[in-house]
Amino acid sequence: MSVRYELIKECKRTKARLGRLHTPHGVIDTPVFMPVGTQATVKTMAPDELKTIGARIILSNTYHLYLRPGHELVRKAGGLHRFMNWDGAILTDSGGFQVFSLSDMRQITDAGVAFRSHIDGSSHLFTPEISMEIQMALGADIAMAFDECAPYPSDYQYTEQALVRTTAWAERCRSAHNRTDQALFGIVQGGMYADLRVRSARELTEMGFPGYGIGGLSVGEPKSLMYELLDCTVPELPTHKPRYLMGVGSPDCLLEGAARGIDMFDCVLPTRIARNGTVMTSQGKLVVRNAGNAEDFSPLDPECDCYTCRNFSRAYIRHLLKADEVLGIRLTTIHNLSFLLRLMGRIRAAIRDDCLPELRAEFLAKYEVAE
Amino acid sequence: MSVRYELIKECKRTKARLGRLHTPHGVIDTPVFMPVGTQATVKTMAPDELKTIGARIILSNTYHLYLRPGHELVRKAGGLHRFMNWDGAILTDSGGFQVFSLSDMRQITDAGVAFRSHIDGSSHLFTPEISMEIQMALGADIAMAFDECAPYPSDYQYTEQALVRTTAWAERCRSAHNRTDQALFGIVQGGMYADLRVRSARELTEMGFPGYGIGGLSVGEPKSLMYELLDCTVPELPTHKPRYLMGVGSPDCLLEGAARGIDMFDCVLPTRIARNGTVMTSQGKLVVRNAGNAEDFSPLDPECDCYTCRNFSRAYIRHLLKADEVLGIRLTTIHNLSFLLRLMGRIRAAIRDDCLPELRAEFLAKYEVAE
Repeated sequence: MSVRYELIKECKRTKARLGRLHTPHGVIDTPVFMPVGTQATVKTMAPDELKTIGARIILSNTYHLYLRPGHELVRKAGGLHRFMNWDGAILTDSGGFQVFSLSDMRQITDAGVAFRSHIDGSSHLFTPEISMEIQMALGADIAMAFDECAPYPSDYQYTEQALVRTTAWAERCRSAHNRTDQALFGIVQGGMYADLRVRSARELTEMGFPGYGIGGLSVGEPKSLMYELLDCTVPELPTHKPRYLMGVGSPDCLLEGAARGIDMFDCVLPTRIARNGTVMTSQGKLVVRNAGNAEDFSPLDPECDCYTCRNFSRAYIRHLLKADEVLGIRLTTIHNLSFLLRLMGRIRAAIRDDCLPELRAEFLAKYEVAE
Repeated sequence: MSVRYELIKECKRTKARLGRLHTPHGVIDTPVFMPVGTQATVKTMAPDELKTIGARIILSNTYHLYLRPGHELVRKAGGLHRFMNWDGAILTDSGGFQVFSLSDMRQITDAGVAFRSHIDGSSHLFTPEISMEIQMALGADIAMAFDECAPYPSDYQYTEQALVRTTAWAERCRSAHNRTDQALFGIVQGGMYADLRVRSARELTEMGFPGYGIGGLSVGEPKSLMYELLDCTVPELPTHKPRYLMGVGSPDCLLEGAARGIDMFDCVLPTRIARNGTVMTSQGKLVVRNAGNAEDFSPLDPECDCYTCRNFSRAYIRHLLKADEVLGIRLTTIHNLSFLLRLMGRIRAAIRDDCLPELRAEFLAKYEVAE
């Protein structure tokens, strides 16, 4: 097995668990947050900086890399790790979510999805087999099955149809995937319907994947509904396989997801809001551009020991952001990713010490949560 | 004296000299190239990265920092070094060149220059006294006298008038400047007229500055004319004071300038062309975006040992540039500055070994020079 999940400890007071993900590119403590490197780079960051802040696995996007620079070029470079000079682990998504959310004029059939590139309008086709071919060329440690992510909201009938297709596509992905140094995870769908979530989880579990994504959540529904759906989905998944909640990464969702037995997360949130000049701090979100920070010579977060907070003031970073200087978004990105990766470390420590509920209460009391 | 120039050696075969510039923020080997940090940041670079590539002194722009974030804010931050967390040396220009080249609706009188901000159109006045006030608030190791840089081309009469004004303003700057931990350099003007250059150099030398800028060159004239003007200007300047050729930084001009007795250079060229995707290599300029680099997995310059060339391929950097990823312009900037700073190190070694003419011939034979 190219990727193996080792269960270290189950929390006595929540469904959280401590584990280790063994990959060809290192052992990763879980629960883990994966920074997103859409175009073979975590925006603004160099690979050694990612290592320094504690990142051990990143996500990259099959849809984007297929369109630019092309998976054949990445294969010729010796795979994605060598192309981008990242020797940690990588997970590639399947391209499923992006063809639905980014591309133009898509047509979905049982065969696959025809779409037009968001870059130049050219026509393309993704099938489960093509997604596997691309992901095998990219050569990440973990590939994801090609799925249909129904839009939110969708009615029961459409959601069920997407689920059936996702199961059929998962089987085709498994047949097409033959790279032994790469794990293929299935993706649970089922929209906002608990019974469909349970059915999807059971159908995929029967196929026996080395790990499971939970897709189609955090797409606009209330967080309380997402938590309910996790509560009924996670117990259907095998104990000794990793569970990956796709596209979720706000601090409160990381705490709530971990408490529900999730092992892996990814999200563009920390890097995206960093580029808009907003940072996460122990006191909640801070809009650095605000005039109130103009003469504030304290760090972004006095409780943070990241490179940014050790070396630069709010006033300086605000100046850089207002002057459109690249160093500004570099510094906010370093801080936000450091903040989330440190939070994951605290979550793991709390699971070890059986005090995750206390960490959750303490953290959320200070950190303002948006619904 | 806050800044002291120590002459180490004069070249036997050219007018080049090896020296040391002692400043409150370190000793700098000369001839030296100063990367430009216009808005209190060398674009895309963090201060520790500048240190790593060998930068020991950088330039920052009085005009830009006065407009944003404002010199009073920088003063409150504890000065420019602390504001931007750079513990190496800094030189600030006087704002003279920028009010002529960047601002709108400027009016020049003997009192000073009234202008409108290029950012928001607001009205401002720079005088020699105001330039000194701003530069003392910024607190660089070296401040520059406020000068009038006549446009190219200008007739003899106008150029002479600008020279007279520059000399008068230099005297006013000297009277207004009273920061003992900061050196004030005069600026030689005189346009394209050898006799005016000589006159300006003599008038300023009589005032006795601790260093001399040579301004108003590399403004559109042929390089051969610039070299001729240097040949007649430099001998008029005192041997034991540093000479700074302002705004010049192409590799051939660094070699030719050093051979003519210049000790300090600055230029936006390496950082600006890096952001346009062009790099300097031992084989000449390379346009990284060109299709020919798409599948080239070799480094930008096989003879370079910078972070970029040790870790990334032309194909990857081209992908980053085409995908508008910040890491792309970070990597080209690191490379170009490393290239120029290493060239300066080779120039210093060649002066030491009395072989600067050989280095010049060897370098320029490989490096294509644009007129």
